[in-house]
Amino acid sequence: MISVEKTSRAGRPRAIPDPAPDLTAREQILDAAAALFVTQGFGSTSTRAIAEAVGIRQASLYYHFAGKDDILAELLERTVRPSAELAAQLQQRAGTDPAAAATALYELAHADAALLASAPHNVGSLYLIPEVRDQRFDEFRSQRAGLQAVYGRLGRIAGNRTHDEMSEAVLGALLIQVVEVVIPLRRADEPPVDPAAVAAAVLRIVGLG
Amino acid sequence: MISVEKTSRAGRPRAIPDPAPDLTAREQILDAAAALFVTQGFGSTSTRAIAEAVGIRQASLYYHFAGKDDILAELLERTVRPSAELAAQLQQRAGTDPAAAATALYELAHADAALLASAPHNVGSLYLIPEVRDQRFDEFRSQRAGLQAVYGRLGRIAGNRTHDEMSEAVLGALLIQVVEVVIPLRRADEPPVDPAAVAAAVLRIVGLG
Repeated sequence: MISVEKTSRAGRPRAIPDPAPDLTAREQILDAAAALFVTQGFGSTSTRAIAEAVGIRQASLYYHFAGKDDILAELLERTVRPSAELAAQLQQRAGTDPAAAATALYELAHADAALLASAPHNVGSLYLIPEVRDQRFDEFRSQRAGLQAVYGRLGRIAGNRTHDEMSEAVLGALLIQVVEVVIPLRRADEPPVDPAAVAAAVLRIVGLG
Repeated sequence: MISVEKTSRAGRPRAIPDPAPDLTAREQILDAAAALFVTQGFGSTSTRAIAEAVGIRQASLYYHFAGKDDILAELLERTVRPSAELAAQLQQRAGTDPAAAATALYELAHADAALLASAPHNVGSLYLIPEVRDQRFDEFRSQRAGLQAVYGRLGRIAGNRTHDEMSEAVLGALLIQVVEVVIPLRRADEPPVDPAAVAAAVLRIVGLG
């Protein structure tokens, strides 16, 4: 159930959108939806089921989100946006110096692994579902592609043995894949993996000990 | 549409199960189902839609499979079973010798990456969907857990710098995760990744160049 602070808008007609919607309700919708998506499946979860889980009416859910695609897009973007922003900063700071790129790569992988480890209900396990191909998820896919590109760039600059073997694009896919090991480990209810161990594995992939 | 060889059972009543069911029909059901699962989503795909895609009646589909869970289980097991069998052989052959374990690890990763690259419609992208937690998928999950355990074992024996940093279980998860980079790369319609490059990355993870 929601614990909404109602005093400031008592008596306001429900049909009029609130210009400052209650963040708590929005967050509760996101959390309940994430739990249902990863336990029941995205395709099998209705907005009605989400609303019921939160304890609100379906119409109230539609005040906050256009639909379940919209909810999933927000959930997925939150698993990527902070890392994508950090990646852009780190790449700029590292420039083309191999040692600086290695440091940046470690820092990025560490932060990214920690972010995925804290994602509500392990929503990263939904990255590959077919529905995410829809254009509603363009923003998520674009941010993730940008993040992956930085992994590849930093890896190529930092690495000393990976130039000939694979393209920067494949290297980026490989490095982000290593970081995302957090997702199946959480899925299997394994003990949390140390982000430092993940970041060290990323460095080893590019040939650094 | 199915190209079924019907001569040998002309006139046989349809209600009586055929003791030697046509393999082609079964394969066509698996292929059509895989295509639908990865494009429409598993939850959104009905056995009726699968039967329609093949051009058979729903009752005919139920002759071959108990339901769509059964179809997905078979598809997923095929992405793991050959690698799990190879892994058992390789582990026995390698014993506790580090160099032999490194060779075995390379061979396993190479074969496993090639298998995932050839899986129909990239069904490996369904590994993490919630439905796969159901007991109908026990056999798949058991085979995959066994495969992952061999990765961890071989990696620990072969590796020279990974003992303290992470458990054998986490190492196994990390190595299988690297091999499974094939799945998102196929999903993103990237050019096929060389299994040799994947196997080399697996060796680097355990500290071997």
